[in-house]
Formats: sequence, C-alpha cells, structure tokens
Amino acid sequence: MLNINKQSDTFLYQQVVDLIAENIKTGTLSPGDRLPSLRKMSNSAGVSIPTVRQAYIELERQRRVESRPQSGYYVRHRAANPIVRPARPLSVDPEPLRCRSLMERVYDGINNPDLVPLGIANPSMAKPAAKTLHRTMKRVMARAEDRSIGYASTLGEAGLRRQIAYHYLDTIGVNVEPDEICITNGGQEALLLALSAVASRGDIVAVETPTYHGLLELIDSLGMLAVEVETCPEDGVTLSALEQTLQKHAVKACMFSTTLGNPLGVTLPPDDRVKLVKMLEKYDVAMVEDDVYGDLLFDGTRPVPAQFLGSKARILTCGSFSKTASPGYRIGWIVSQKDTDEVARLKRAFSCSSGLLQQMTLSEFMASGDYSRHVKSLRPVLKQNSERMLAVVAEHFPKSTRTSKPVGGSVLWLELPKNVDAEQLFDDAIKAGISIAPGHIFSPCACYRNFVRLSYGHPWTDKTEQAIKWLGQHVQRLSTLTS
Amino acid sequence: MLNINKQSDTFLYQQVVDLIAENIKTGTLSPGDRLPSLRKMSNSAGVSIPTVRQAYIELERQRRVESRPQSGYYVRHRAANPIVRPARPLSVDPEPLRCRSLMERVYDGINNPDLVPLGIANPSMAKPAAKTLHRTMKRVMARAEDRSIGYASTLGEAGLRRQIAYHYLDTIGVNVEPDEICITNGGQEALLLALSAVASRGDIVAVETPTYHGLLELIDSLGMLAVEVETCPEDGVTLSALEQTLQKHAVKACMFSTTLGNPLGVTLPPDDRVKLVKMLEKYDVAMVEDDVYGDLLFDGTRPVPAQFLGSKARILTCGSFSKTASPGYRIGWIVSQKDTDEVARLKRAFSCSSGLLQQMTLSEFMASGDYSRHVKSLRPVLKQNSERMLAVVAEHFPKSTRTSKPVGGSVLWLELPKNVDAEQLFDDAIKAGISIAPGHIFSPCACYRNFVRLSYGHPWTDKTEQAIKWLGQHVQRLSTLTS
Repeated sequence: MLNINKQSDTFLYQQVVDLIAENIKTGTLSPGDRLPSLRKMSNSAGVSIPTVRQAYIELERQRRVESRPQSGYYVRHRAANPIVRPARPLSVDPEPLRCRSLMERVYDGINNPDLVPLGIANPSMAKPAAKTLHRTMKRVMARAEDRSIGYASTLGEAGLRRQIAYHYLDTIGVNVEPDEICITNGGQEALLLALSAVASRGDIVAVETPTYHGLLELIDSLGMLAVEVETCPEDGVTLSALEQTLQKHAVKACMFSTTLGNPLGVTLPPDDRVKLVKMLEKYDVAMVEDDVYGDLLFDGTRPVPAQFLGSKARILTCGSFSKTASPGYRIGWIVSQKDTDEVARLKRAFSCSSGLLQQMTLSEFMASGDYSRHVKSLRPVLKQNSERMLAVVAEHFPKSTRTSKPVGGSVLWLELPKNVDAEQLFDDAIKAGISIAPGHIFSPCACYRNFVRLSYGHPWTDKTEQAIKWLGQHVQRLSTLTS
Repeated sequence: MLNINKQSDTFLYQQVVDLIAENIKTGTLSPGDRLPSLRKMSNSAGVSIPTVRQAYIELERQRRVESRPQSGYYVRHRAANPIVRPARPLSVDPEPLRCRSLMERVYDGINNPDLVPLGIANPSMAKPAAKTLHRTMKRVMARAEDRSIGYASTLGEAGLRRQIAYHYLDTIGVNVEPDEICITNGGQEALLLALSAVASRGDIVAVETPTYHGLLELIDSLGMLAVEVETCPEDGVTLSALEQTLQKHAVKACMFSTTLGNPLGVTLPPDDRVKLVKMLEKYDVAMVEDDVYGDLLFDGTRPVPAQFLGSKARILTCGSFSKTASPGYRIGWIVSQKDTDEVARLKRAFSCSSGLLQQMTLSEFMASGDYSRHVKSLRPVLKQNSERMLAVVAEHFPKSTRTSKPVGGSVLWLELPKNVDAEQLFDDAIKAGISIAPGHIFSPCACYRNFVRLSYGHPWTDKTEQAIKWLGQHVQRLSTLTS
C-alpha cells in the first residue's frame, strides 16, 4: 500500500499528485515511463478510480505527464531548469534608482484590468476570501453602526492587535504584546514607517538583490541610497557578502525579507537568521524585516522572524493582510519592541490612523478562525498554480531559461537567454494583452535585464496558460532575432 | 409679515431662530427685552405656534434667551466675547517642535472612548451618515464581490476621481481633470505626500499661527522646520507678515488652510487669495493648501481654493472625506496640476494605493447625491452646536475669556485668562472625564499656553453641556488660584 493518509487535510487526489511528482523527482519514474493504470493505482493507493483520474488530469495540466489515446498516461520529458545563480559581483556600491519610468509603465500594466495579470504579486486573489470577508463586515456594520465609520486610534483597533499577537503565539510560539503592534495602511506603509524610524535622508540601506521594487522606490523617495547584497536563490542573503558591505559602507539599516523574499521566493535558513541577528548587533545596524509572505509557505511550519531571535538588535517586522486575504483593505502592521513610540509618532504624523471598519472586520475574521482556514486553503492553490506555471514555462520557453523553485508565495523568477531584453518583452507583452514584471525594476541599477518575474497569484485559467505560452514563444523569437 | 421662506430647505423653526438671533445681533432686541408671545409671533411670521415654540426652546438651549415662568421668553445678558487677537510678534524664526509629549497625551485623550470628546476635530460625527454609507457599501459588495477586496490603482478608483472633479465643477465652477487627483489614505496622508513632493529634510515651511498640530508633527517628522506667520482670526494669514517671512527666510513651502483653518476657523477673503497666489509666484514658493474643511461653511458658497486662482504657482490642494462623512474610511485626495507625476510616485512608494471598497462606496455615495444631501444636513447641526457651545462658554467661563466666532467646521478657539495654564486644565479635565486640546500643541514653540480648542463636532448632549460648564468653572478656579 502506498503512503496515502486519509486523515490528512490534503485532498486525496492531491496526495496522489504529490506521490507521483515525488517519484518523478527522485527518478523512480523517468521521462517516457507509463503511469500505473487507473485501476492498478486505485488498488495500490486505496483510493477510488475517480480520485486517481482527477490526480492524473491534474498532473497533465501541470505538464508533468501526458495522456496518449488508448494507451494511458506517460511521464513527460521536461526542460532542465536549474535554479538561478547569483548574477552580481560581491560588495557593490550604493546606487540611485535608474529605472523610474519603466517602473511607472509596469504599474500602468498592473493597473490595467484588461491585461492578463502576470505582473503583480497578488497571492490572495488565487482564491479570494471575499464572501467570508463581506459577511463579516456586514456583521460589524450592524453591531457598531456609527462607531465603525469613525476614527481608529493611532496604533489601531485593540482587538485586531490582540488577534495578530495571538497569531504569532499560535503559529511560531512567540510572545508579542499587542501594544508592540502598530496597524498600518498595508504592508507598504509599514515599510515606510519602519524605515523612517531607523534611517533618514542620505543614509545607506542594504537590500537583497534582486529585491522587491517597492522597497527600492521607497528608499529612493526618502532620499536614501540602496546598496545591494548578494543573495543566493537557495539560501537568501549571503552573510559573508553582507559583512563585507557593512565593513565597506556606513549602512544605517538593512531591509531584508527573511521568508519568501520577492522575487526569488527564498527563505533564510534558521541558522542564518541567528547569525544575521548577531551581525546586526555587532555592527549596530537596524533591520526592517519584510515578512508579508510569512504565512504563505506551501508546506511546513512558518519560520520565526529574525526580530524574535535576539534581544539587542533593533529590528522592525512588517506584516500585512494584503498578500493573504484583502489587498484592498490596506491593512498591514509593524511589530517593534524597541521603536514602539517612534513608530506611533510617525504613524500619527504620516496618516493619522488606519481604516477602522476593515480593522474590525479582520479582527473578527481572525477571531472566528476564518483567517487560518482561508490561508490553509489558499496555500495548496498557490502550490498547484506554481507547478502548472513551472510546467508551462518548461514546455514553451527556450531550453536555456532558468527558473526559481517557489516553495511559497505567488511569483516565479526567470532568467532568460542573455540576449533577450526583458523591457522589450514587457513592451511586446503589453501589446499582446499580458502584464509582466521585467527584471530591471528589481535592482537600483536595472541590471537584471534578461530576467522577468511572473505571478501565479490569480485563478488559473486557459488565458493564463495561453499568456505564458505566448511569452515563451516570444522569448524564443527575441533570442533568435538578436543572436 | 416677517421674512420667512416656506420654499427654503431650512426648517421653519430654524428660520425663526435665525430671525430672532439676527435681531439680537443688530440690537433690535436688547438684553432684557421680552420676545413676542407665541401667538403673536405665529401670526406675524405666518408659521404655526408649535413651530415658534420649537424655535424659542432652541434659542433657550443656545442661551440666547431665557424663559421666565408665567411671563414668557427674554433676551439674555451675554458676556462680551471679542474675537481673539493675534498674540504673537511678527516674523518669528523657524522653530523645532517643543511639545511632543503633550501631543501624545492629547492623542491618548482623543483615543479614550470614555471621555467627553471635546479634544478632537471630528465634524461628521455630529450627524453620522453611517446608515447611508453602510447601505451603499453593501450594494458595492454585492455588485463587485471579488474585485472590491482587491488592490485599487495608484491614483485611486477612476469613478471616485470623476465624482470629486465633478464636485469642484458643481460647487465652485472649476474644471479639474480626474487624472490630476490622487486618492490618499485620508487628509493626513494627502498632506504628507503633498509636502514631500515640494520640500525635503532641512527645509523651512511657513505655517499659520496657531495651526493644526497634525501639520506641525508632519513637518517635524520629515525633518523640516516650521516658521509661524501671523494669522488674523478674522481674515486669515497676514500677507504683509508672510512677505516679511519670505524675505527673511529661505522658505521652501507654505502650508496654509485657506478655508476654515484649524483651530481659528478663519477663511482667507477672495482678494487675499489672489494676492497670496501672486506672492507665491513672486517668491517661487510652493504651497500645500489644506482644504479639508472646504465643504463645511455654515452658510454661503464654498470659496475657490487658491490653486485655481493662478496658473504659475505650484499649489497642491488637499481634501478629505474624514471631516464630512467617514473619518474611518481614511479616504482623502490631492489635486495637483503641476506635481501629478511626483505625487503618484510618492503615493506608490509610501503606501501603494488606498482602500478600494471605501473608494467604490464613496464614489456611489457622491454619484447618488447622498453626499451633497448629507453635507447640507450636517452644516445646520454644526452651526447649532457652535451656537450652543458659544452660549454655554459665555455663561460659565470667566468674563475675560475670548473666543473665535466659528462660521463653519467644528471647533471653537478660546483665549483664557493669562494666568491659566491650558496644560493644567487638560490634565485636570482628563481626570474629570473630558478630553480637550490645549493651545500649546498649535504652535511649534508651545506658546498658546492660555488657549484651548474645544470641538462641537459630536451630537450635542447634556454631557457636552455639563463638560463645558465644568471646564468654565475650573478655569475660574485656576485663574483665582494663581492670581
């Protein structure tokens, strides 16, 4: 009997998918091999024939297997997609932002509802929680009619801060005081307030490379300079490179994503987290910890944010509901044990307070268990989407294309053939009705010119598949044209 | 027949109130005079006896008249409350913020729901539009289920920007392009983005004195310095004083409220608006125009924001729904003809976008006419509240107390006897269950020490009246103790 667990929360068909995928990965099933027949698999796994059929159809959608009429399902030949390797030299110098106008065009693409949305990192939309959220909000409106349209307090609704504190306790066993949490207008304002609390105009801020373009625009807008630190696609920021940077430059703050960094999707291993905190303490450098994807690892437990791994380092951790549940609510938060007062002062000065109705709604959404249930059901959808996207990319992009291997979140990072310019691809894709994020915008010096980030954070449709196929074929064309 | 207009939108009883008040003001009715009997007034005004009775009861609540058993209503003797005069010398130097910790305590008071809320400027709560807003939001949820929880675009929902543009056209006949409007997280973020667009760390910003404490905290948080410009409680910022300041200091931007400035409630006359714009052009100084109270003049038409009075000056006008309809929605906006791109860039970098569901709701709230109807019904409530507050202040505060004469908005500015410290009053009031705003926080150098700002922007109750009475009596005590 194969290892199928009927008590598990994972659907049976998904367990069969995982089982076959694992066998393909380890080589037990090789390209060209025939899968067991539906009946045989049903017997050996102890699940129904329709369940096996569902699994095989899913594997076919993921391009892992193909069906041959009158014959059965066979393991496909896949392109080799080794993980992207660092493309940058060590210890580069601080750089001003070079690709403002391209960033603006990328946002125009993101904001255009008529395009296939592969350009925006928006995981929650893969399985929207709108119904439950709306139901919850209506209850709040009825219960607190006048109050719910009034001002929230500066730090935010006490009930929501308690729920977030409880979430940290529940998921990672860490004690956070509700008064150490400040509710913000989404994750982006959390980053603004946290960075403003620890650095000011002219200061140097260390970032991963590649890194989230929103960080780069923020650093630039505050008159600071970003210095890139080599980041390994498998293990996150390279600590030896960071130490060299800290020795060479008067870095005021680091701005790192410790879990599922965007766009690499990389998570800093536990040992490195501890070493990172020690290094921050040693060099007396503050850190803004971008943790907005913390709840979105496909499998396994949520890593502990670096802030909770040391008592001396000055770390401000930024979270958000935008990636998990409700982007349009604009509700995020900062956990800060050392800069609580400064964060509150900045919050008051910059935007007074955050939306109350949304805070009350999310507080109830968490308290009822709906949030946990929703995230639990969102993760497998994202995982499935990532597998589908990897498969379609493998099939249609040039063989030399290399990709990240997402273990969570909603984005795939692709290295295209060297002679392909992602800005050209971006422009052509917009004309073809597709929005993507060209690599340029993930570095202040616009150096990831043959990289793109694709998002699988939307319900998977034929349009998605067609769009990726078009992109792959167009990359083929571009690489041939210019070679 | 007296001048009563039965076609008017103003309630008949309110017209009677206005008529009597006007007669008291002009001296036709003097203190001690008896009002016409109910029957006589009913005949001469052509309204019913119950209507006249309602008017007289209201006049009694406003402390303008008093009833004497078996005799009728008589005009009361009122304390003389001349308008506050400038208390500051001309052309002072830029000042860093001195009263941070007091500001924090004021916000603690504001955020405490158990206190009588005289400390926060929150006009919309005098007549909450919650029912209509909730109904509208539910319609939006039903119509755009998934979309309404998603990201808004950077500039904000196109429909709402069109409605705001139309509102400018409708109320002041000014053409604004929807693309010149950027939706923000409330008025405070509008101020942040507008100021960040035109000035940076170390720059000097000219402000009215006294001025809104939120401006001072913002300027301070951005590492800028505020320089105060003499402001006349009757006519707004004194232009000769402003010119001296511009000659003496390298002012980068002005941050003025042209309509219903907070806390003076003063509105810049039309001629001075034009002169101000010319002066900004002459000295090449930008202006952030705080116009969040623009819709809340009790009577008469909305003045035209300075931005629309000149084509060369760089002016960014900040508006908000927080003062008129929905503080907790955190939806405000910037109109900027010259800095549109920079504002959008900052908005994206600082907070990505604003809440979509609230934007869609407000768009529909405006399109249906509900917004205009609501504001129209809110103004007379605020006016009535202001009259009540003035009357209770006149009755219970020391005779030497001087007050502003609100013509809109929700706050009264009081000058107390010189020896009364408003910080002491604030501390004692908190203990007595009342939150107020001490004068210190309306100036960077904390110089309005014997001033307080009281808000009448909440439903008027016996508690409100008792609280003002307690404050008046306590000011009496404090002035006696220390004299």
